Amino acid sequence: MKTSKHTFFCNNLNDLNLPPDESHHAVGVLRLKSGNHINVTDGKGNFALVKIIEPSKKNLTFEIVEKFQQAKPTTNIHIAIAPTKSNDRIEFFLEKATEIGITEITPILSANSERKKINTERWEKILIAASKQSNNHHFPILNELTKLHDFIKENNSENTQYYIAHCEADKPRTELKDEQITQKNNCILIGPEGDFNLEEINLAITNKFKPVSLGKTRLRTETAGIVACHILNLIS
Amino acid sequence: MKTSKHTFFCNNLNDLNLPPDESHHAVGVLRLKSGNHINVTDGKGNFALVKIIEPSKKNLTFEIVEKFQQAKPTTNIHIAIAPTKSNDRIEFFLEKATEIGITEITPILSANSERKKINTERWEKILIAASKQSNNHHFPILNELTKLHDFIKENNSENTQYYIAHCEADKPRTELKDEQITQKNNCILIGPEGDFNLEEINLAITNKFKPVSLGKTRLRTETAGIVACHILNLIS
Repeated sequence: MKTSKHTFFCNNLNDLNLPPDESHHAVGVLRLKSGNHINVTDGKGNFALVKIIEPSKKNLTFEIVEKFQQAKPTTNIHIAIAPTKSNDRIEFFLEKATEIGITEITPILSANSERKKINTERWEKILIAASKQSNNHHFPILNELTKLHDFIKENNSENTQYYIAHCEADKPRTELKDEQITQKNNCILIGPEGDFNLEEINLAITNKFKPVSLGKTRLRTETAGIVACHILNLIS
Repeated sequence: MKTSKHTFFCNNLNDLNLPPDESHHAVGVLRLKSGNHINVTDGKGNFALVKIIEPSKKNLTFEIVEKFQQAKPTTNIHIAIAPTKSNDRIEFFLEKATEIGITEITPILSANSERKKINTERWEKILIAASKQSNNHHFPILNELTKLHDFIKENNSENTQYYIAHCEADKPRTELKDEQITQKNNCILIGPEGDFNLEEINLAITNKFKPVSLGKTRLRTETAGIVACHILNLIS
């Protein structure tokens, strides 16, 4: 399979051109020229080796050399996480979870949430950049910021195993790493800096979210998200 | 076990005082006062709940209320990693690996290394802060920046299993997650942005470093370090 070291995003490969920001990166930053080969991905599993025809900074055009398809992940990892107070920390989670293989992200608002707004456009850019970097042609789905109560009520599919990771050591929890994954879809709730409160934990458990621990050490929110994603990736 | 939410570092608990930077943080930043309780740890497994006597910004003194000991980790995780070009990235690795449970870190210089110097004092501070945050009273050991060739030659203990994680897909590798951990000590080499070169990989393999892969996706250096630490933590 021939590929280039540079990968660009384009919503539909058959458009035969890159959107303005990707065109600018290719031509304005990387100085790519007519005749150079690049990879183009649609983030939905389709990608192609293409040849640059017109190296325009606003609307790079290309012709397709060879098309490829990447198989969908066999299991889905959906993490619903309270954004951290520090943007750097949650953005690092987004990047690392994407590299590891997350498939869906829902930012959630919980009682102890320190951050109540997110910059969706910036988050999307991070997910796209990390997907390209890790050769993942299925970009993760990013959902809207959702209240925890709504999330719990709306997420009750029979084909999904739901988990809640919390730090209440005196409440019964199993180790996520010891779980037997039987579902194609797995979804886990990760709390904010101050953890979920007891009412939230109980609501989740009543609604079939299985309480789990992510290990013996105390983890920051973004680390818990990375570790949960990695465990689900390893055991599924 | 009674504890406080604030933990401070002190080389020897019996000194009954905090070093200047920790004193400043306790009194100048957190405004702690005489009679307040704090945790003090020596980073070697000993910690105590103490009561502040003299809340000096330069030399806080305390009396010990109760002493504790934290058992040593049963297995050691030593990661030898090429520092990334971006300080943020390698510092994020330091923090996350510490939260997960790394016990020893060696920064290494390899042929493709983009960063050839490190700020040891800053790295130490990150390791201490992350250890305190995650309730780990055994701080990771930080070794000096070492040339890869020297590291490989000097590390040949019979009680350690050595690994090298590299990205040469056409060279035989096993999955680290499928390894059977039999040694108390485990050590893994993580390469720079441009990976190890073939000569380095061959030198490591000749010197009993087992070649491994960390999963199916392409990971950045700092992500590879975090993932390797987490896998060793899970399987050992």
